[in-house]
Amino acid sequence: MAKRIHNFNAGPAVLPLPVLEEAQEHLVDFHGQGHSLMEMSHRGKTYDAVHTQTIADMREVMHISDDYEVIFMQGGASLQFAAVPLNLAPAGGKVLYADTGSWSTKAMQEASKLGYAMQQVAGSGDAEYTYIPTIDAARLDKDAAYLHITSNNTIRGTQYHSWPATGDLPLVADMSSDINCRVVDIDKFGLIYAGAQKNMGPSGVTIVIMRKELLARSPKNIPSLTNYATIAGKQSLYNTPPTFAIYLIGLVLKWIAGQGGLPAIEKTNRQKAAKLYALIDGTDFYRGTARVEDRSLMNVTFRLPSEDLEKRFVAEATEADMIGLKGHRSVGGCRASIYNASSLADVEALVDFMGEFERRNG
Amino acid sequence: MAKRIHNFNAGPAVLPLPVLEEAQEHLVDFHGQGHSLMEMSHRGKTYDAVHTQTIADMREVMHISDDYEVIFMQGGASLQFAAVPLNLAPAGGKVLYADTGSWSTKAMQEASKLGYAMQQVAGSGDAEYTYIPTIDAARLDKDAAYLHITSNNTIRGTQYHSWPATGDLPLVADMSSDINCRVVDIDKFGLIYAGAQKNMGPSGVTIVIMRKELLARSPKNIPSLTNYATIAGKQSLYNTPPTFAIYLIGLVLKWIAGQGGLPAIEKTNRQKAAKLYALIDGTDFYRGTARVEDRSLMNVTFRLPSEDLEKRFVAEATEADMIGLKGHRSVGGCRASIYNASSLADVEALVDFMGEFERRNG
Repeated sequence: MAKRIHNFNAGPAVLPLPVLEEAQEHLVDFHGQGHSLMEMSHRGKTYDAVHTQTIADMREVMHISDDYEVIFMQGGASLQFAAVPLNLAPAGGKVLYADTGSWSTKAMQEASKLGYAMQQVAGSGDAEYTYIPTIDAARLDKDAAYLHITSNNTIRGTQYHSWPATGDLPLVADMSSDINCRVVDIDKFGLIYAGAQKNMGPSGVTIVIMRKELLARSPKNIPSLTNYATIAGKQSLYNTPPTFAIYLIGLVLKWIAGQGGLPAIEKTNRQKAAKLYALIDGTDFYRGTARVEDRSLMNVTFRLPSEDLEKRFVAEATEADMIGLKGHRSVGGCRASIYNASSLADVEALVDFMGEFERRNG
Repeated sequence: MAKRIHNFNAGPAVLPLPVLEEAQEHLVDFHGQGHSLMEMSHRGKTYDAVHTQTIADMREVMHISDDYEVIFMQGGASLQFAAVPLNLAPAGGKVLYADTGSWSTKAMQEASKLGYAMQQVAGSGDAEYTYIPTIDAARLDKDAAYLHITSNNTIRGTQYHSWPATGDLPLVADMSSDINCRVVDIDKFGLIYAGAQKNMGPSGVTIVIMRKELLARSPKNIPSLTNYATIAGKQSLYNTPPTFAIYLIGLVLKWIAGQGGLPAIEKTNRQKAAKLYALIDGTDFYRGTARVEDRSLMNVTFRLPSEDLEKRFVAEATEADMIGLKGHRSVGGCRASIYNASSLADVEALVDFMGEFERRNG
C-alpha cells in the first residue's frame, strides 16, 4: 500500500482515502463503460444519474428542505462574492456584512467595487480578527438586501458557534471552510455557498444552497454564469458543469453518510479539535491565537515562543510526514487544518509530535 | 486490459488513453508524495510546478509569443461570453459578432443582455448555419471594441479555414471545439478562449490566450473572476484554480508534443476527416449537411435517408461500441465528433460500420 501522509493543508485539503481510491479505480473505465466519466456527455444517462444523485445525497445528508435549491457553480467563493450582491440586491442597493477577516473583507470589497452600498455592521478588525463579533440583529437595517457572514475563518482560526437571528433579512453565509463539519439548521439561512476544496471535494466546483423564493430577485442583465435563477432553472446544466468534481462531491457525501452522517462527523470533529486545543491550553509553549469561545473546529491556529521555533516546528513536522502546518503567509505562526477527512489518528499523531517537540525545545 | 469504446461524443469528449492512465496511476499518491494532487495547496511547490509547466508547455506547443498572456479561468465559454465584452469594451460600447450558429448566437445575446451595442456583421442564419459567411474586414466599424467569431461550430459542423484580416480591430475567437486541432497563427488574434472539454482536458477549466496590451482595457468595476487583468496579474492564482483539471491539460499538452506537435496532430485530423467525408460524398445514402469548403475537421455532421434510419444507425453503432453519434437535439441527424484524441483507428472503425450499415439498409 502506498504511503499516506498526515495532511493538515488549509485547502485544497485532505480527501477521504476511500473516495480517492474509488475515483482512481474507475478513472479510465467508468464502471465497465469503456470510457472515463470525464469523457461522457453531461447530458448523457450516466452523468445525469451522478448529477441527480449527488444533489439528492446533499439534500439527505444536510437535511435541505424543498424550500431550497441546490446549485453547482464554478469560480469558487470569489465568484460568489460578486454573485451574491448581483443576484440578491438591486443595483446600488444596501448590503450588510460582518467582517471577520481576510475572506469577509474580500467579499465586502467586491460588493463595494460593483457599486453596492456596502455597510459593515460588525467586525473584529479591532483585535486582529481573533474573535467573532456580536451582531445585534434587532438593529440591522431591514431595507438591506441581506446580511453576509463568513462562518469559519481559515486564516485566524475563528468560527461562528451560533447564528444571528436576522428575521426576514436573508442571512448569507460563506461556508467554504466549514460546510458539513457539523449539523447546521439550513432554515436559518437565505443562502449558503461553499467552494468544495476543503470539506466537500476538489477545487473547481462551488455549492450554493438557497431559498427558492430568493431566485425571483435575480436580474436579467448580469452575466449568465453568475445568475442563480438561470443556473437553477437548468438544474446546474445551463452549460457544461465540472463533471468529475461533482462526481467526487457525490463520493464524499456517500462517505459522510457511511460515517454516520453529520452528527457523527461533528462528534469526531469536536474530539479532534478538543485534543489539539487541550494540548495548546495545557502549556505555555504553544499559544492559541483565537478567543477560546470562538475557536474553529476546522483550523487550529497557534504560535510557538519564537518564529525560529515555528520554522523548526514546521520543518520537523514535514520530516515526520505531517504537512500543511505553516500559518497563512499574511499572519505567520502555525495552523493545523483538521477538516472532515482528517482523522482522529491524524490529530493524535500531531498531538504526540507537538508534545514531543515541546519536550525537546521547551 | 479494460475495454475501450470508440467515443464520438461532442463534449465532454474522448481524452488520450495515456493521459487517463497516467492520471489514474498517480491519483491517490502523486508521485510518491503520499497524497493526491487534489489534496495539495495551490500555492505549494508541487502544484506550482505543474501550473507553471502547463503554461510553458502551452506556449511551446501553440507557439504563443511573449506578447500574449495565457490564463486559466472557470465557467467555460459561457462565462467568456460575458467576460469578453466586460473586459474589452467600454460600458455600452460597440462590439461586432459573426453569427455561425447556436454558440455564436449565445455569445451575441450575452453581450446584448449586458448592455453593449452588439452588431452582427456577418451570419449564416439564412441557410441554417450550414456555411461560414464572408467577413468584409475593410467594412468593419473601426470604432468597435472587437470582432468575435466562433472558429468551429459543433452543432452544424462548420469551421473557419481562414481568418478575417481585421487589422487593428482585435479578433476574438471562441475556439472551444477546435483549439489545437491544427496549426494556428496566434498573432492573428487579440484573444482566443476555449473550454477545455473537447480537445484539451476535462470540463471545469477555460483557457484564455490574449494580447497583453488588451489587459489595460479591463475596468475595475466588473466581477473579479471575470477580470482578465486581475487573474493574469496573479498568474491564474488569484483564487484556488481547478488544480486537477489544469494538471490534465498539462498531460494532454505532453501527449500532443509526443505525437509530433500540432503539425502532426493536424495531419492526422485531416486524414480522419477526409476518410469520413469521402465515404459520405461517395454515396447518396449519407448526406453531409455543411457546405463542402466550410466543413469541420472536428464535427462531421450528416443525415441518412430517414429519421427512422438515423435512429437505427445510432442504436446499432452504440451496440458496436461507437457512442456519441446522435446529432445535437436542436438539429437532429447524425454527428461524429473526431477530436484530437479520437484516433485514425476509431474513424476507420466508424467508416467500416457506416459502409456496412449502408449495404444492409441502402
